[in-house]
Amino acid sequence: MSERRTDLVVVGRKPVLRYALAVLTSFNRGSTEVVVRGRGRSVAKCVDVVNTLRNSFYRDLRIEDVKLGTDQLVLGDRTVNVSFIEIRISRGGRS
Amino acid sequence: MSERRTDLVVVGRKPVLRYALAVLTSFNRGSTEVVVRGRGRSVAKCVDVVNTLRNSFYRDLRIEDVKLGTDQLVLGDRTVNVSFIEIRISRGGRS
Repeated sequence: MSERRTDLVVVGRKPVLRYALAVLTSFNRGSTEVVVRGRGRSVAKCVDVVNTLRNSFYRDLRIEDVKLGTDQLVLGDRTVNVSFIEIRISRGGRS
Repeated sequence: MSERRTDLVVVGRKPVLRYALAVLTSFNRGSTEVVVRGRGRSVAKCVDVVNTLRNSFYRDLRIEDVKLGTDQLVLGDRTVNVSFIEIRISRGGRS
């Protein structure tokens, strides 16, 4: 099985460990890569999730790519720009 | 002059535009690269700074590298882990 399976975990308001657990579950189910995505205030939490995984669960975690950008949200009659981050991670030993 | 000059802008509690201005000033003074660094809650602000620069000032801004990690802060008798981000940017047309 050399196919690539990428999963997406969107980080929101729940505690960091919830999202870390979601990533763990995804890897255990066979994902080769997981993209951790968050926007606005959750950007910082995304970084926390990845660091928690690296420090506590996967020593061999690899950050494949980090993408930064802006989402335009339409709220009623105005548009706001919100920064987002997408961190693509994999487990080094496996790839 | 093909030497490389890298400047560091540390993002803290001031408004986003302050840091964007600091980066602008650094490029105007001849830096080839600027590292925008923040930790904890400022991680999200770092991303805002880079997006503001890209959307409003430098269309040709290039994100060279993004580094994520954990700083260990000693506060009194306990140690806390704080996530940080370092975004290395350059002006595409110049390099």
